[in-house]
Amino acid sequence: MIHLDALNSGRREEFVAALGEIFEHAPWVAERAFARQPFSTVAALHETMMAAVAAATPEEQLALIGGHPELGGKIARAGSMAASSRQEQGALGLDRLSDAEFDRFERMNADYRARFGFPFIIGVRRHTRDSILAQFERRLGHDRAAELATALAEIGHITRLRVVAAVDGPGKPKSDGRLSTHILDTVAGRPAAGVRLVLKEIGASAESVLKETVTNSDGRTDEPLLAGAPLRIGRYEIAFHIGDYFARQGTATANPPFLDVVPVRFGIAEPEGHYHVPLLASPWSFSTYRGS
Amino acid sequence: MIHLDALNSGRREEFVAALGEIFEHAPWVAERAFARQPFSTVAALHETMMAAVAAATPEEQLALIGGHPELGGKIARAGSMAASSRQEQGALGLDRLSDAEFDRFERMNADYRARFGFPFIIGVRRHTRDSILAQFERRLGHDRAAELATALAEIGHITRLRVVAAVDGPGKPKSDGRLSTHILDTVAGRPAAGVRLVLKEIGASAESVLKETVTNSDGRTDEPLLAGAPLRIGRYEIAFHIGDYFARQGTATANPPFLDVVPVRFGIAEPEGHYHVPLLASPWSFSTYRGS
Amino acid sequence: MIHLDALNSGRREEFVAALGEIFEHAPWVAERAFARQPFSTVAALHETMMAAVAAATPEEQLALIGGHPELGGKIARAGSMAASSRQEQGALGLDRLSDAEFDRFERMNADYRARFGFPFIIGVRRHTRDSILAQFERRLGHDRAAELATALAEIGHITRLRVVAAVDGPGKPKSDGRLSTHILDTVAGRPAAGVRLVLKEIGASAESVLKETVTNSDGRTDEPLLAGAPLRIGRYEIAFHIGDYFARQGTATANPPFLDVVPVRFGIAEPEGHYHVPLLASPWSFSTYRGS
Amino acid sequence: MIHLDALNSGRREEFVAALGEIFEHAPWVAERAFARQPFSTVAALHETMMAAVAAATPEEQLALIGGHPELGGKIARAGSMAASSRQEQGALGLDRLSDAEFDRFERMNADYRARFGFPFIIGVRRHTRDSILAQFERRLGHDRAAELATALAEIGHITRLRVVAAVDGPGKPKSDGRLSTHILDTVAGRPAAGVRLVLKEIGASAESVLKETVTNSDGRTDEPLLAGAPLRIGRYEIAFHIGDYFARQGTATANPPFLDVVPVRFGIAEPEGHYHVPLLASPWSFSTYRGS
Repeated sequence: MIHLDALNSGRREEFVAALGEIFEHAPWVAERAFARQPFSTVAALHETMMAAVAAATPEEQLALIGGHPELGGKIARAGSMAASSRQEQGALGLDRLSDAEFDRFERMNADYRARFGFPFIIGVRRHTRDSILAQFERRLGHDRAAELATALAEIGHITRLRVVAAVDGPGKPKSDGRLSTHILDTVAGRPAAGVRLVLKEIGASAESVLKETVTNSDGRTDEPLLAGAPLRIGRYEIAFHIGDYFARQGTATANPPFLDVVPVRFGIAEPEGHYHVPLLASPWSFSTYRGS
Repeated sequence: MIHLDALNSGRREEFVAALGEIFEHAPWVAERAFARQPFSTVAALHETMMAAVAAATPEEQLALIGGHPELGGKIARAGSMAASSRQEQGALGLDRLSDAEFDRFERMNADYRARFGFPFIIGVRRHTRDSILAQFERRLGHDRAAELATALAEIGHITRLRVVAAVDGPGKPKSDGRLSTHILDTVAGRPAAGVRLVLKEIGASAESVLKETVTNSDGRTDEPLLAGAPLRIGRYEIAFHIGDYFARQGTATANPPFLDVVPVRFGIAEPEGHYHVPLLASPWSFSTYRGS
Repeated sequence: MIHLDALNSGRREEFVAALGEIFEHAPWVAERAFARQPFSTVAALHETMMAAVAAATPEEQLALIGGHPELGGKIARAGSMAASSRQEQGALGLDRLSDAEFDRFERMNADYRARFGFPFIIGVRRHTRDSILAQFERRLGHDRAAELATALAEIGHITRLRVVAAVDGPGKPKSDGRLSTHILDTVAGRPAAGVRLVLKEIGASAESVLKETVTNSDGRTDEPLLAGAPLRIGRYEIAFHIGDYFARQGTATANPPFLDVVPVRFGIAEPEGHYHVPLLASPWSFSTYRGS
Repeated sequence: MIHLDALNSGRREEFVAALGEIFEHAPWVAERAFARQPFSTVAALHETMMAAVAAATPEEQLALIGGHPELGGKIARAGSMAASSRQEQGALGLDRLSDAEFDRFERMNADYRARFGFPFIIGVRRHTRDSILAQFERRLGHDRAAELATALAEIGHITRLRVVAAVDGPGKPKSDGRLSTHILDTVAGRPAAGVRLVLKEIGASAESVLKETVTNSDGRTDEPLLAGAPLRIGRYEIAFHIGDYFARQGTATANPPFLDVVPVRFGIAEPEGHYHVPLLASPWSFSTYRGS
């Protein structure tokens, strides 16, 4: 990783060597941004690069977009990914498409290319399989101008993550989200410790366990449920195993308990947001909400 | 259906003719109860019959229990039930056992018979498949005295339903339960009308839709979700489709919405109880509880 | 009370004799309504009378309004009311004005008369002292046309109550409101019985106890907290004595308890509405909402 | 303030000079604790001093207790306290007793001295006026042994605060509490910013405003509502002005609003605890709980 100070004080060649591949096949973006040196924050550096893209000619913009690989190609490659790499994805990735979903992808890909003449670009690290499909469908309804703007905005999402990964320094742009939880035992008026939690992605056609953990003495998890990367737009469930917890507390309850494994389903729409999804529970009642 | 007045004023033969088959192969229960005529309520009639059972000799009690068919036989018959009759069950009935579950049933049946020397009796109309399996396992751990008492209590549950079906009159014993719901829109401070609800039984190995309905202008369902019979001990889910509801209200929300289809899972442990399971919801928060 | 059937089949003189004084000093309203006989509901009768008012000449409308006594006169009379009659009011009535409030009333009364040339009319049975003062202030800001319409609407509220009191029959117009409550113990998952409740009106300058009661075995009050009359627009408090309740349950708590006497303050804006204000409580948490 | 390291490495005279007055008129406590030098934490130092008290002879313990001034004397002094010092108390302190309360205090003081022969000792910084009165009453019911133990425990509370104030170093004993809040707007699913809050102590005979503040953009207050000292055992209210907040949001509501100024009353029983008292609110519903 290079430091912003080095970029600010370095020569043009060094600058372009360091940042020329942030925008695929378009070192001219780094070259033009160099003219605006120095940058007070990493975020300002990325914004300046995006301003250079916005100020480019239509032909240059189109070439930039066209320089991205097809999403279809990614899917094909995904099929042959090593198991370890798939596991890293930790979710219902594009490598796990059913035959029907694969056909749908292929068809939309072809339709998109036919309609707009350039490949479908999306920041896949901010999406689940379902939200990519939903975006595909929605964007096929765009006119050409709206879709060009959308494609450039997606390039902004993709390159922001690359800048964050490549450049160290002050004022990094917000590029990761966070999902956290907290369980309060409303019978005892204190955090519920030792409650098992299972976080799943709930896809349209399948579910995938993302994390299994247990609350600590503060009723929280030692690590956030999700953090360190953008959240993927999609649907999720946290299953709170409060039946076992209250049984261990000796709280009088029924058999089977009224509340046992409590699933809380929710959607994530802001990849860079903080989603706090707590549970306030007795053996007979619970509340949840998007907190902060 | 015969009226309690007719039983109270009738002769012994008529009484026994009307009630002799309430207890399987044991007309003596009705005969002995006749001596306590008249009965002020239908409940008193059933209690008197059960008191006659409690006062009977051990040999008579054992014969009463032994007169019941094996649950295993019921399962076999269930496999050949007409589709219409299966549908009436409306749940994960014994006719839908997987091979593994069927084997488990057969094995427990054999173990039970070997251990106690009499058939396993359970008021199946108060149970789901899962709770029958759970009861089987639990009762195999009983000593003989405890299990005899349990078997007689189950005969009480079975015959209470038969008395209610056979005799009209005041003071019928409580033999049915009720499941109801209510949805409150906490943004508008009024009942949420037109919300789709799906009630499911959540079995250990499968799920079964019991009812699909929509809330009326009072935020309730026109009919209770379950009523007119005992509730079956087991696990259930109501899925509240509040995402669509709030979208129709024009309430600003996210895409995908934070709350869309909200599943509320709960256990029913009292077949003759009233379970009111309401939802208080905004697009970003909800509460539920066992109400009354 | 006369029955709608009698009015529908009777002669003009009888009709006017029965209803001529519903609108003060304006028997012509009853006379003109008679022409629309028969009426299918009591509500239709009142609506027809109000339609006659709406269709009257400006001079007739003004005379109708002018025929009402000054609110100021009512206040003066209130000061000399018998104690029993004051108690019936059961709230912070106009008879209990502080000197400062009395002066404010007098001043607004004079301003109103000077501005509009007719007396201030308001359906006092739908208001608390505070809401009368608020209405006075608001209506002083009206132009003459808006205020005429408001005065006629208030005559509608006043006469609706009179029609309901004078005429029996089907389809009575909604003229009373209801305030009810319910307490759920979320530790035990059942209604909280035996909880003391105190309902107060919370005036800007004073408070007044309207009712003290205790919840029954269903967690409700045997009678609604308020019913049988319009609710008075204003601010209220229900104090729920749940500390004592949980102490009696033996639920472990703190000293002093975290929750003891829980005041819930709320406003009533719809005199003919149903306000259900329940409490869901553990010793450490509670929720409340406008229910239905 | 002296550092623990200095105490650990210093000579006996220095140790006693620094800590001899922590226990009133009882330098022997410090002297005996010196024998246990060194101490790994400040808490261990205080515990060792308390262990020396516990191991002392009955006569020594009694002399220690007797060396404390009467609470009655404190009250007298309070009456003549400078206004600034009273304000620091920030609550319904002993200087603000009504005549009736003062008489009650005097009477209990005399009764206590007559019954036990030593002065009533209580860590006043952990109490409100009401809880001192409640403790007085409760402890008058003790037998002598129980009350001696209680008096020593209170000396522990008093001296813990003195040790914390006098000695710097690792592992300070927990001696302060914290009251915090958070407001969540459940209509918008985000923190409610700009909500006015008023914190009061609710005494049996009077109320006292402790703090008025406004929530920041995270729905919290910039400073905790109470912190940096023990919380005083007693009853409190936070009034949340959410009516104005929702009016500013343009959220449709009623006039008067159903929820306007929402008072949440709660008791504090643990002076060294953290009380988090949040509000989840829409214009028509709210929840609160003791959180963490």
